[in-house]
Amino acid sequence: MSGTPRIAIDAMGGDDGLAVMIDGVARAYADDKDLRFLLVGEESAIGAALATRPALQGVVEIRHAADVIAGSDKPSQAIRRAKTTSMGLTIDAVKSGAADAAVSGGNTGALMAMAKLALRTLAGIDRPALAALLPTLGDNDLVMLDLGANTECDANNLVEFAVMGAAYARVVMGLAAPRVRLLNIGEEELKGTDAVRDAAARLRGAADLPMRFDGYIEADRLGRGEADVIVSDGFTGNIALKSVEGTARFITDLLRRAFTSSLRSKAGFVLSRPAFHMLKTHLDPNNHNGAVFLGLNGIVVKSHGSADAGGVANAIAVAAKLARAGIAGRIADDLEHFRAADRAPAAAK
Amino acid sequence: MSGTPRIAIDAMGGDDGLAVMIDGVARAYADDKDLRFLLVGEESAIGAALATRPALQGVVEIRHAADVIAGSDKPSQAIRRAKTTSMGLTIDAVKSGAADAAVSGGNTGALMAMAKLALRTLAGIDRPALAALLPTLGDNDLVMLDLGANTECDANNLVEFAVMGAAYARVVMGLAAPRVRLLNIGEEELKGTDAVRDAAARLRGAADLPMRFDGYIEADRLGRGEADVIVSDGFTGNIALKSVEGTARFITDLLRRAFTSSLRSKAGFVLSRPAFHMLKTHLDPNNHNGAVFLGLNGIVVKSHGSADAGGVANAIAVAAKLARAGIAGRIADDLEHFRAADRAPAAAK
Repeated sequence: MSGTPRIAIDAMGGDDGLAVMIDGVARAYADDKDLRFLLVGEESAIGAALATRPALQGVVEIRHAADVIAGSDKPSQAIRRAKTTSMGLTIDAVKSGAADAAVSGGNTGALMAMAKLALRTLAGIDRPALAALLPTLGDNDLVMLDLGANTECDANNLVEFAVMGAAYARVVMGLAAPRVRLLNIGEEELKGTDAVRDAAARLRGAADLPMRFDGYIEADRLGRGEADVIVSDGFTGNIALKSVEGTARFITDLLRRAFTSSLRSKAGFVLSRPAFHMLKTHLDPNNHNGAVFLGLNGIVVKSHGSADAGGVANAIAVAAKLARAGIAGRIADDLEHFRAADRAPAAAK
Repeated sequence: MSGTPRIAIDAMGGDDGLAVMIDGVARAYADDKDLRFLLVGEESAIGAALATRPALQGVVEIRHAADVIAGSDKPSQAIRRAKTTSMGLTIDAVKSGAADAAVSGGNTGALMAMAKLALRTLAGIDRPALAALLPTLGDNDLVMLDLGANTECDANNLVEFAVMGAAYARVVMGLAAPRVRLLNIGEEELKGTDAVRDAAARLRGAADLPMRFDGYIEADRLGRGEADVIVSDGFTGNIALKSVEGTARFITDLLRRAFTSSLRSKAGFVLSRPAFHMLKTHLDPNNHNGAVFLGLNGIVVKSHGSADAGGVANAIAVAAKLARAGIAGRIADDLEHFRAADRAPAAAK
C-alpha cells in the first residue's frame, strides 16, 4: 500500500457514540496528515457532526449503515447482521480493499466473530489473538496477547501467538529481535500447564528467528521491562490484564481517600499535583489504546469502549502504523520461517 | 482443643532466617498471651536467639532439626527428608498432636507436598488449596483460593474450593453467609472454561448452605468489596494475585520517581507523608500475611518468605484463629452438607 493509509472507522461503536469517534478522527488527522478516513454509520448524523469540522473536509468519506451492534448482542447474532451494521460494514471495507484497516470501539466478541468470518485467518494460523500494548518501567511498551479471544489454547496456538506478537513488536516498536516470554506461575522449566511447557520446548528449539525466546515470566514482573512480548492463552491474559487495570484503579482510589483525609495531606496533594499528573499520564489507558486482532487477512483494531478522543486517535495511529508496515505479510513470513526451523530439529532426530 | 493453641514454627524457614521468625513469635505472644510455641530447627541457634527474649521464657519449647529445606529443593526431594528437616518436623508436630497448627516461611511447593503426605486430605476432598486474604475497599478482606497449589482443576475441585473458602471466611472474618464468586473473564453465564461453567451450575443448584453464590467476577473487580470469597484454579489464581502484587509495586515505584522529579513535588511528598503511610499500611503484604492450605487434616499456614516480624506474627495469629475455630471440622461439615444438597436435585430429576 501507499504511505497514505485509508482507515475505516465504526463511527457508531464506543460507549460515548459518534461525537468522541469524530473528535478522535480529528485528533488523529491533526497528528498525521497522511491519513484518509471512511466513516461508517448513520449518514445524516455523521454529516451533521462533520459540518463543525472543516479541517476534515476532503479527507473523510461516509458509508451509510442503518444498524448498530449493541454491547449486549451475542457474537452469533451479530454476524447475521454484518451487511447492515456499522461494525460489519467497517470490516467489509477492509475485505473489499476500500480501506487498509478498520477501527471499532464496539462489542469485542462481535467484532472478533465478524472479523474472523469476513477476513479469515492467515494461511497456517488456527486462531487470531487479541494483542495490546501495556506500559512498563523499561524503555518501551510491552505487547501482551492473547487477551481474551481464545479461552482455551494448546501449545500450537501459544507458539503462533509468540510469532505473531514478535512481528507486532517489530512493527510497532521497531525492535529487531523482541524478547518473548510465556506467562507462567514460576520460572523453572517444570512449572505450568502441559500447553505452556510444550510451547516453551518448541520455542526454545527454533533458532534463527527475528525474536529471542527468554523462557517464562511471572505475573508480578509484567511491567518491569524484562520482556517485549508476553504470551498466554486468552483466559489467563484477560485475568492478568484486568488484575493490572483493577489494581491501578484500586490504588488511585486509595490515594484519593488518603489525600482527602486531612488538611495537611490536601496541601501536600496540591503541591504534588504535577507528580500525580505524570503518574496519571503514564497509566492512562487512553495512551495505550488500540488492541489488535493478529492473524487475520487484514487489520482490525479494537478501541476501548470508554476511550476518549485521544484514545481513539491512538487506536487510529496504531492501525495506520500496522497498515504501513504490512503486518499481515510480516506475520506470514515469520510463521513460514518458524515452521522451517521447527521441522529441522524433528527431521534431524 | 483448649483456648491455648500450641503453634509449631519452622524456625529455619523464610528468607531472613531465624532472627525474624523469633521476632515474629515474640510479637505474636505480646498480642496474644494465650499462645504456646514449638520452635523447630537448629537447637543451639534457637537457644542462643531465645536468650535475649526473656518474655518468651516458659511459653516456648524447642525441637531439634539438623537439616533445612532450601528454596531450590524440589518437592519430590524434600519429602524424602521429612524426618530430618525443620519443615518436615514442624508438620510432624501437627500430625502427632504435639501442636495444633504449623507455620513455615519456607519453600511453598515442598511445604505443600510434605503437608499433603503427612496429614492427608479431609475425607471427600481431592486436593488441598492455598488460600490467602487480600485487602479490599469493602468492610472486610477477601479470601482468594487456589493460589497455586493445583495448576489444572476440574469443576469438582472448584466446587470443593468454594466450600472450603466459605468455611475459612466464616471462621476468620466471622461472616454468617460469605458471598462466593468464581473468577472468570466475563459475568455472562456462557463465559469461561467448561470447568468454570460446570462449577457455577452446581453451586447455583445447591441451596441451604452457609454461603451465597453470586456467580462470576472479573479480575478488575477483585478489591472492590463485591465478594468475600473468590475461587479459581491455582494457575489463574496465582496469575491474578501476582498481577495485583506486581502492579502495586509498579505504581509505588512510579510514585517514587514522580515525587523525586522536582523540588516542588518533594515538598508535596513530605506534607503528604501521613497519607502515604496510610496507603502503605493498607497495601503492605505483611498485614495480610499467612496463606493457608485448606482441606488437610490439620492446619498448615504458609508465611511469605520475605515477611518481616509483623508479618510472621500475623501468620501465627491466623494459625491460632483457625486452630481455635476447628477449621477442619467446619470444612468437613460444610462439604457433607453440600454433597447432600448437590445430590438432592440430581435425585429429583
